[in-house]
Amino acid sequence: MTDSTPKAAVVIIGNEILSGRTQDVNLAFLAKELGKLGIRLAEARVIRDEVSVIAENVRLLRDLYDYVFTTGGIGPTHDDITAEGVALAFDLPLMRNPLALERLRAHYGAGELNDMRKRMADMPEGALLIDNPISSAPGFEIGNVFVLAGVPKIAQAMFDQLKHRLAKGPPLAAMTVRAFVPEGLLAQGLKEIQETFADVGIGSYPFMSGQKLGASIVIRGLDKARIESVAQRVAELMRTLGGEPYAETGET
Amino acid sequence: MTDSTPKAAVVIIGNEILSGRTQDVNLAFLAKELGKLGIRLAEARVIRDEVSVIAENVRLLRDLYDYVFTTGGIGPTHDDITAEGVALAFDLPLMRNPLALERLRAHYGAGELNDMRKRMADMPEGALLIDNPISSAPGFEIGNVFVLAGVPKIAQAMFDQLKHRLAKGPPLAAMTVRAFVPEGLLAQGLKEIQETFADVGIGSYPFMSGQKLGASIVIRGLDKARIESVAQRVAELMRTLGGEPYAETGET
Repeated sequence: MTDSTPKAAVVIIGNEILSGRTQDVNLAFLAKELGKLGIRLAEARVIRDEVSVIAENVRLLRDLYDYVFTTGGIGPTHDDITAEGVALAFDLPLMRNPLALERLRAHYGAGELNDMRKRMADMPEGALLIDNPISSAPGFEIGNVFVLAGVPKIAQAMFDQLKHRLAKGPPLAAMTVRAFVPEGLLAQGLKEIQETFADVGIGSYPFMSGQKLGASIVIRGLDKARIESVAQRVAELMRTLGGEPYAETGET
Repeated sequence: MTDSTPKAAVVIIGNEILSGRTQDVNLAFLAKELGKLGIRLAEARVIRDEVSVIAENVRLLRDLYDYVFTTGGIGPTHDDITAEGVALAFDLPLMRNPLALERLRAHYGAGELNDMRKRMADMPEGALLIDNPISSAPGFEIGNVFVLAGVPKIAQAMFDQLKHRLAKGPPLAAMTVRAFVPEGLLAQGLKEIQETFADVGIGSYPFMSGQKLGASIVIRGLDKARIESVAQRVAELMRTLGGEPYAETGET
């Protein structure tokens, strides 16, 4: 990674994730999408539905990273308090956004747009809307913070709307080399390769298929040629240890 | 929740989660298991494979919470550095644990126990082992921090070994009431119920089945009778709005 690589954090807001009721899938989605844009996801946090906790985390992370993405807590019910927390993080008043309200009115009709639904138009002063093509209630952008829905389909659609606004980083390339060799046998050789190619990240992930142990070696970096050199060395190492390496581009 | 409820944090260590390559499932598992023990998961973090980052997060969280659980980074390869990070968090030296080494020797046999595999016996001085019935390399406990494997099956088996060591909290009860009523229509009534029953947590989670919108209302607290009262009120509210509520105990 270089210093020109933008860095991001994800904040997953919701008691339902911390109770284990809901399996989060937004983190993996955002991680992959950010990777495609050359933006590095530096850390993620899962926090509870409390205004002060949201404010504290967003305040800290927006200072540390180029971008912060939050998911969850922007619906109409009393436990949807993300906008309030983000406003507090920026010391900005929470305002009813007229454009957002208009969209809600168009979606629900005047009769169905009750006071609680109107809350979905409340945002920190100066926020820009992020379109929600699925259920209309928009997300928003304020400073370097992007506030997305928790429902994965909506979070994904929102990210698609906003991603052209992000500063891209140099594209990160990746290759994966796999073989049925236990990682404990590869470890010494991998360490030596990592020492030789310090600019490339080498990760080792064990897997099991039936009773057979194997390892996926994921090689990441900015220079494709260097990554291919590393992949070749890893493949040779695997062959030396009796494995039949299988390499592919990408991180799957 | 009361002050007698123990609180925990989970730290998921691994670049593979932050790149989106691997979908984490350990958080949801630990969240549910801790809930069964009456321990509240207060927050979780996903952090990268860097000794200083691991140390900084573990140091902070072990001071804030009763328990910290880490997953990932305890294998034999160069990118497995969790033990080093945790040792640094406690300002303790990293030592080769003789009992852990013995287990590795029994598992691999002297010939296969190479230097990199021996690293799996390196732990902060004074650490207690957490059994690994699947692949032998143990996790460990130091102070209020429990270091588990990243492979879900192994993390789960390790948690089963250690959970009897944890101080249980008062059991948390939960009920879920569901109906095909959009949460925007329930919101005002829910808010009023929440205000009346401030000691009970009421969460609202929208769902969609085909084109029909619905909401799951999750009610949590320490007093079963209060939870049942709230569930009854929520069910009445749903009926008023034309829904047919379906209630169940537990958080599914």
